[in-house]
This record gives sequence, C-alpha cells and structure tokens, in this order.
Amino acid sequence: MKWLRYSVDGETFQGYLAQKTLHAVSAPPWGDWKELGIEHAMNEVKIEVPVIPPTFYAAGLNYVKHIIEVAESRGEKPVIPAAADIGYRAVNALIADQEDVIIPADAGEKIHYEAELVVVIGKKIKNVSEQDALSAVLGYTIGNDVSERDWQKTDRTFFRSKNSDTFKPMGPWIETNFDIGQAKTRVKVNGNQTIEFDTKAMLFDISTFISRSSKYVTFCPGDVIWMGTDGTSPNIRDGDKVEIEITGLGTLTNTFRRLGN
Amino acid sequence: MKWLRYSVDGETFQGYLAQKTLHAVSAPPWGDWKELGIEHAMNEVKIEVPVIPPTFYAAGLNYVKHIIEVAESRGEKPVIPAAADIGYRAVNALIADQEDVIIPADAGEKIHYEAELVVVIGKKIKNVSEQDALSAVLGYTIGNDVSERDWQKTDRTFFRSKNSDTFKPMGPWIETNFDIGQAKTRVKVNGNQTIEFDTKAMLFDISTFISRSSKYVTFCPGDVIWMGTDGTSPNIRDGDKVEIEITGLGTLTNTFRRLGN
Repeated sequence: MKWLRYSVDGETFQGYLAQKTLHAVSAPPWGDWKELGIEHAMNEVKIEVPVIPPTFYAAGLNYVKHIIEVAESRGEKPVIPAAADIGYRAVNALIADQEDVIIPADAGEKIHYEAELVVVIGKKIKNVSEQDALSAVLGYTIGNDVSERDWQKTDRTFFRSKNSDTFKPMGPWIETNFDIGQAKTRVKVNGNQTIEFDTKAMLFDISTFISRSSKYVTFCPGDVIWMGTDGTSPNIRDGDKVEIEITGLGTLTNTFRRLGN
Repeated sequence: MKWLRYSVDGETFQGYLAQKTLHAVSAPPWGDWKELGIEHAMNEVKIEVPVIPPTFYAAGLNYVKHIIEVAESRGEKPVIPAAADIGYRAVNALIADQEDVIIPADAGEKIHYEAELVVVIGKKIKNVSEQDALSAVLGYTIGNDVSERDWQKTDRTFFRSKNSDTFKPMGPWIETNFDIGQAKTRVKVNGNQTIEFDTKAMLFDISTFISRSSKYVTFCPGDVIWMGTDGTSPNIRDGDKVEIEITGLGTLTNTFRRLGN
C-alpha cells in the first residue's frame, strides 16, 4: 500500500494510491482513518513530503564502503562505528519529490547526494527487542541526505552542511509492502547511473538501530529513520537532476539549483 | 504575557495566565487565536511542555566559563567555538515542569543539569539581519539540558547522553515580556543554590545565532533555541530536586529518579 501526502490548489490531503487514483482519508496511516470520499488522479496533484516527523533520526555512517571511500577522499583513516548510535536531521530541510534542492550561493563545489532507505515508524514503542523491532515500522520511503562536504568538515554541527533548507528530499510515498532482501539502491545524475548498491548491506540493520535506540528513546508514529548510504557522489552542479530509485519504493527525483547562478 | 499548555482531566489546552486564572484560546500564541470562554484556576491544572517545536535547536557550548570548566574536568584544553554553529536536541526527550527526569539504570554517576534560557520563535523567517533577529522571537522559557557525561564522551551522537526520554525539561511557560539585561540564572539542588550566572553572558548572543542560522535555515513558529549554560553541575542522584530560576521567567522544577532504585 502506498501512502501519500499531496496538495491540490494549495489544499493538503493524505491518502492512499490505488491504480492511478488517490483516495483521501481523514487521519494519518497509523491513525484511525476513514475514507473521505474525495478522489484525485495521481497526475493532477502535487506530491508533498510524505510525513513531517516529530523526531527526525538518521543512522549516519552505516555502509562500510561509504565510510572507507569518504575517509580516503579526506586522507583520513576510516573509523568503523562500534555501535548503532543514532543521530538526527532537521525538519526545516525537508522537501518533496520533484521539488528543487537550492544550493546556497556561498556553498563549496562538493555538493553530494546520499541515497538512503527511510524507515517510517507507525507505533509508539520503547524497549523493543531486535526480534520485535520491525513491528513498529509502518513502511519505507527514499531520502537524499544532501551534503556540503566543506561545511561538514569545518562546522561544529551539521546545521548547514546537511540541514540547509531543501537539503533533505524525501518521498515520493510511504510503501508498506517492501522486501529489503533483494532491493537495490540506484542513483542517476542527468540520466546516467552513478552507483548501485544492495540496500540491505548495512553495518547495523534496521532492527538493531530501533532496538538499541528504544532502550533510551520512545519512537512515535511518524518518526523517520534515515538508514545511511553507500559509496560516494560526484559533485552535483546547478541544473543537475538526481534520481534515487530503491526497488519497490519508486524514484525520488530532484533538480539542484545554485543561488546566484 | 504568560502562555501555557496545560491539561485538565487528560484534555490539553493552550491559553494565557492572567492573575491566577488560565484563559483557554483556540490557536497557538503566534496564530490567529480567539478566547474559548473556558477558564481554569492555575492550581487545578497540570502544566504541559509549553510548545512542541517543529525543529528543536540548541546553541551548545555558549558560555566561556562552562567551556573551560568542562574541558578542565576532562583534562582537555578548552576550545572556544569560532562561530555560532547551531545544533539540535530531540522532541522525544521533552518533559514539563514538575515532571520527573528518569535516569536509565545503565547510566553512569555523572548526571548533570544545564540551566538554559530558551528562545521561542513566533514568526517564519529566513535571511534576517542581526538588527531584526529579535523581531522573530515570541518569548522565552527555561530549559534543563540534562546530560550524562560518560555517554557524551563515548558515543558518536547525543542520542542517549542528552536525548534520552525525559532529559529535556522545558517550561513552565512562555513569557513574552523578558529583559535579559539584568536577568540571572540560578540553580538549586534540594533547596541549596549551586550556581548563579548572568543569563546574558553568552559567547554568541541570540541575535547572532538567529541571524547566522537564518542564512541557511528557515525558522518557523514554535521552533525553540536553547542558548547554552554556564558553570558546571554536581552529580545529580536519585531523589534530587533541581530548580532552575531565570529572573522574570519563573522556575522550572524537576525531580530526578534513577531506574532500578
């Protein structure tokens, strides 16, 4: 089942997609929703960010190849995380599928995509075991953890390197029926594939992150966990179109625009 | 003017305090609110967290004495931040005035308070000058940035050292009329004052943080910025009551409980 947030003439709806028709409902997918009897064709709506998370979690470094390649590009020794310590991103930076990533005029050249599987929480949980962790998951979507590498290195925090407005494209929708086992994550820049990796090839898997974190934090419906990325990215320039596909989850497409250009 | 969120028999209201009476309103203080004609005596309600921020910002290290004392206690050389790089805390950890801070059973002994001025944003702003930055502020409240120092040192992120459930007491209310010029921040543990400092003695002031951040991020109504703390804290133990007073903003009071005790 595919859950979307979308707008028509400035009014925002939430609903599910069946064939090419969106059926609006009265509450989020984890809630006590009812059909509103309002339908729209998929091609006549604007897709919005599929969920505004109360808390926006991110696994960070979670694919070994990415950790090694990033360290090498900096002339540093790779440090593989010893535990699933979860991090954060910020809601101000979220944009939807098809919206533009705006690169600040003073950003450096090293603007990179990071193609990530996004877990959407559907239940309030605390102290969940690894065995039961996935029962808290409503579904999955795609995230692009856009990063400015100079600021990421120089700043004390990720406030502008990763959380500048528009740096967190997420979508296009939440898919409740997803098999990570065979899934591939693929990225295209201007139509040319730049990377493909096994979505599941994580250092710490989804159950590990949820279980360990939930010993200390309560996950709530609508919370998202971005699961990290593999490999590296070329420098993305003004006008470049980045498409991230994860098998079964659709494609997240965003064009990058640099201010001052 | 004092704005509160509060509950009565499990129903949550927002409203303002006049003398000792709470007047419920229809929308947040930054919204197009109307009187609901519902009144409660202050002493018959449960105070709730005054605002659930869309994005929860924190200045981090922002008082020189705190930076030096923390570094010395670790046997490290103090590093004074060169720029107002804003950080984050997590919504899951928020609790209200009078609620208990729950210390996880596996936490170390070094549980510390951090008494902080909290800025509440009332307007959507981007690219604001230092001169105009305070026009975005709705009001002020108090935060306790509870920290577990061992995890803060060992973990890759602050997910449990600072964002364990209940580690972010905030309140009791939002005061729109606040003069930082003469304000003092005072902390008492079990009735005995442990520290007093000038609230305004920040490395980077509120205008600087808002203006610099707003070059990259859009602040939204309800966002909060925790402005950092001065000095250090004794180890807080099971049963200790911590009271933080900031002149003109009231007192934030929370008792600490350790699980397994």
